[in-house]
Amino acid sequence: MEVAFIGLGSMGLPIARNVLKQGHSMTVYNRTRERSEILVAEGARISPTPSGAVASAEIVFTMLSDDTAVSDIVFGTNGIVESPSLHVSLSAISVDLAKRLDQSQKNYLSCPVFGRPEAAAAAQLLLVAAGKPDRVQRVQSILEKLGRKLFVVGEEPWQANAIKIAGNFTIAAMLETLAEALALVRKSGIDPHTFLEIVGTNLFRSPVYENYGRAMADGKFSPAGFKMHLGLKDIRLALAAADGAQTPMPLASLLHDQFLSGVARGHGELDWCALAKVIADDAGVPY
Amino acid sequence: MEVAFIGLGSMGLPIARNVLKQGHSMTVYNRTRERSEILVAEGARISPTPSGAVASAEIVFTMLSDDTAVSDIVFGTNGIVESPSLHVSLSAISVDLAKRLDQSQKNYLSCPVFGRPEAAAAAQLLLVAAGKPDRVQRVQSILEKLGRKLFVVGEEPWQANAIKIAGNFTIAAMLETLAEALALVRKSGIDPHTFLEIVGTNLFRSPVYENYGRAMADGKFSPAGFKMHLGLKDIRLALAAADGAQTPMPLASLLHDQFLSGVARGHGELDWCALAKVIADDAGVPY
Amino acid sequence: MEVAFIGLGSMGLPIARNVLKQGHSMTVYNRTRERSEILVAEGARISPTPSGAVASAEIVFTMLSDDTAVSDIVFGTNGIVESPSLHVSLSAISVDLAKRLDQSQKNYLSCPVFGRPEAAAAAQLLLVAAGKPDRVQRVQSILEKLGRKLFVVGEEPWQANAIKIAGNFTIAAMLETLAEALALVRKSGIDPHTFLEIVGTNLFRSPVYENYGRAMADGKFSPAGFKMHLGLKDIRLALAAADGAQTPMPLASLLHDQFLSGVARGHGELDWCALAKVIADDAGVPY
Amino acid sequence: MEVAFIGLGSMGLPIARNVLKQGHSMTVYNRTRERSEILVAEGARISPTPSGAVASAEIVFTMLSDDTAVSDIVFGTNGIVESPSLHVSLSAISVDLAKRLDQSQKNYLSCPVFGRPEAAAAAQLLLVAAGKPDRVQRVQSILEKLGRKLFVVGEEPWQANAIKIAGNFTIAAMLETLAEALALVRKSGIDPHTFLEIVGTNLFRSPVYENYGRAMADGKFSPAGFKMHLGLKDIRLALAAADGAQTPMPLASLLHDQFLSGVARGHGELDWCALAKVIADDAGVPY
Repeated sequence: MEVAFIGLGSMGLPIARNVLKQGHSMTVYNRTRERSEILVAEGARISPTPSGAVASAEIVFTMLSDDTAVSDIVFGTNGIVESPSLHVSLSAISVDLAKRLDQSQKNYLSCPVFGRPEAAAAAQLLLVAAGKPDRVQRVQSILEKLGRKLFVVGEEPWQANAIKIAGNFTIAAMLETLAEALALVRKSGIDPHTFLEIVGTNLFRSPVYENYGRAMADGKFSPAGFKMHLGLKDIRLALAAADGAQTPMPLASLLHDQFLSGVARGHGELDWCALAKVIADDAGVPY
Repeated sequence: MEVAFIGLGSMGLPIARNVLKQGHSMTVYNRTRERSEILVAEGARISPTPSGAVASAEIVFTMLSDDTAVSDIVFGTNGIVESPSLHVSLSAISVDLAKRLDQSQKNYLSCPVFGRPEAAAAAQLLLVAAGKPDRVQRVQSILEKLGRKLFVVGEEPWQANAIKIAGNFTIAAMLETLAEALALVRKSGIDPHTFLEIVGTNLFRSPVYENYGRAMADGKFSPAGFKMHLGLKDIRLALAAADGAQTPMPLASLLHDQFLSGVARGHGELDWCALAKVIADDAGVPY
Repeated sequence: MEVAFIGLGSMGLPIARNVLKQGHSMTVYNRTRERSEILVAEGARISPTPSGAVASAEIVFTMLSDDTAVSDIVFGTNGIVESPSLHVSLSAISVDLAKRLDQSQKNYLSCPVFGRPEAAAAAQLLLVAAGKPDRVQRVQSILEKLGRKLFVVGEEPWQANAIKIAGNFTIAAMLETLAEALALVRKSGIDPHTFLEIVGTNLFRSPVYENYGRAMADGKFSPAGFKMHLGLKDIRLALAAADGAQTPMPLASLLHDQFLSGVARGHGELDWCALAKVIADDAGVPY
Repeated sequence: MEVAFIGLGSMGLPIARNVLKQGHSMTVYNRTRERSEILVAEGARISPTPSGAVASAEIVFTMLSDDTAVSDIVFGTNGIVESPSLHVSLSAISVDLAKRLDQSQKNYLSCPVFGRPEAAAAAQLLLVAAGKPDRVQRVQSILEKLGRKLFVVGEEPWQANAIKIAGNFTIAAMLETLAEALALVRKSGIDPHTFLEIVGTNLFRSPVYENYGRAMADGKFSPAGFKMHLGLKDIRLALAAADGAQTPMPLASLLHDQFLSGVARGHGELDWCALAKVIADDAGVPY
């Protein structure tokens, strides 16, 4: 198939590469050209504009950092809003923007993903798609090979985004939970690894708890797998969705304030599990 | 060995039974005699007082509902405070009471457990012991057969209680997290089971998430595996420990207020995952 | 002077009337024509469009309900964005919109006000102006007669909006404070009026405490002086300003969730001091 | 009359002096003798024990720092529990302790006060009494001269304590409110004094807002009028009362965590309005 891929950041590049490997013909666009050139060696063509990239594509994937970046690519100069291609939006965007894209574009599909860059590279993502069944069908075989599982959750594209947002909220909440529990444990003179072995490994038995718990216990907050200021952005998406749905989410509010304080204290570029540092500082027991 | 077992509630009874099965000679005490009689058929003797039960015991286990109940058994009329037996306290009690027991008794050991009555019956508990090594050693073989794993976490008994408290806080935080995420999901017109399959089963891959998530999605809050008013008690223990350790735990404070509101609204006898009901009511989307 | 007045709601109408009384020539615009006709009897002319209203005006006042309404009047069809008139924005708008208006218009001034419709009618408002000194000077004598005091707080228009936003946050926080204190007092079987006499009248000695406290103690939440859904809007402005300034405001987050819950429970049209009802319901002691 | 006065701290000393000035015969007890000797010059006698001080007194006043101190004086060695004197408890104690004192003593009366040491010295306190009418009557003329107003609020002594607790919560909430508003104002580059003139002086028109607001705007947190660790104690009383009355008070929970963090960061000896410092640090804009 003839595909376009827009956005070759830490997530976009490995996903685009995996699409390429499936044997499709690909034109790419990225704001900074250097990232695009990496894929030229693997067979992709470069377009200097988003609209150029999609000109002859059946399907266009976008994987960008936030609402503003997606809006620019779609509605900005040389944007793709008028393209009849099937737009598969992989980015973590707001419910409101997903609705607007669906109203503005002929063929729109939301398919946000769970997983870090390593999972993207290893095709171990979880993909959550929503949109008209015939649109999902057109791209389903490509999507299925990008991760360990593809979920089709509804006919309204924004529903996939709501699930992604609620899921990221869940991870952020787990960070706050671990951060508070570990602050208490550390202030009680107990080895945090002992706590994690019991609660993370044996009680919850979840790799997410284990991985983030270990990073917190070791005070290892960089290099960032997912930066705190992006975590703050995701919590803002959760609060916006909650506001729109008239659903009070006091824990999301708490997370907002904690991440905002982390960023205000200068930790925006650390991994978002540096929430443990914010809370430890509040308790007077710095890392 | 000659053992005593005090407290035959929903957790105490199956644990006592499992100790009996190991072939030990047991005298039991319970506030209401009916519970004790169940074990007589299985070989136990009944004592009308706590002090009577421990009179000839090498080891006395206590499994009671809260600080007040444990204090009564130890420091009250016919209490066991003066007994030279090794006191193995299985209850979820405060850090402060654990310290006081250790100071008041000759042979004290904390060994709180994680797990519901079914896990107790199936010897699938997680046990967390702390105390002098020689004391742990005396009871270790009994404890190991009561669960799927025994953790020895330190020489100060209260440290085991701190871990139990931090662990229960972690579960309660997961309930709040799921409850808020599900309220958002439900108000967005998405089937909560879909969300849980993605986030619980595939992302977190944790049985705790799966089990509580399913109960919430189904709105199944009774019969209670663990009652909300007991959950509130456990959060109070977390806040007391946090206060003592000068560790702000804003999420624990939030949990306190949510459970307190749940109890004030009359849900104290429901399972503590009825937190989902409290939050759904706040969002105007009742179960 | 030749003035225009856009927005004749419960606040706009009495303010416009007071400007008229000062002897100025006025053209008015309101979305629903009925409100405009009230002022025709007092000497105003009606324009069918915003741009028509400002065509020959030296000064144009706007008093609208929120960011969307102000944006429509300024940037929408027949908007006033190109008008060289001095635009005096009296509305409670966001810091971001104030900045955008100042960048888009030749002569822009922010002058939000504190006070209810009765205070507007009685010229007892507090007015907070910010903008270039020569612009303030041109309208100062009009503004001074609209309230009991005019504060000029800076040369950047948005600074006046930040103060208005922080001030409204302060009132909302007082509502939450009183609501929680009164819930405790009521559940303790104490007459809330007794508490208010001591704390409101004698300790704080503030008319704001007294008035809202009395309404809460009496459970008198309608007719609304200021509706809860507008209170929610104002708290959103505070959170947006806090986000922009990287200032965690956990109490503002709490207020957001409480008002959002109030609206979700169907109290959006009640006075915002019906927060007392939300909190009383949470405590199981309904009004 | 023959009176005893126990507790000559920063509040107790000026109150005792004002009782002395009324012409009563007084025996005093204080843990550290130096404070007692100040009053000897003004006509008081010293007793080396609490029980000695009350031996021949008709009325005994106690003014101590917290529940523990009051419990020691009443129930400890040489305590006053058996004394038939009328015990007028001026301290800020818990609802639970007030109930216990009333049950344990023949003649008990709660009369907590609002006001700082300067107000005590100037007889400008607000006094809140509760208890059997005949007991109130016996001491009413003395109490009335100690402040600017005496409120008699009920026949159950603990009701006066509940009002004191709810009142102190109200002040603490105002501190948080001002601290957050001022953090936003400062980060917006606005002079906090300007904000305070508008909101404190002109909108709320409350001396409490003005005084604390000025201290915060000036960053003047010592010498402490009321220390932060005592503020934390008072919030704990509020949460305990809320727990007892099954009344969720999320703002009280927030205050608890903020003050606890202040103490954990080492500000326990500063004035409790140093909450502004905690919040400013969280926002990355230190004083």
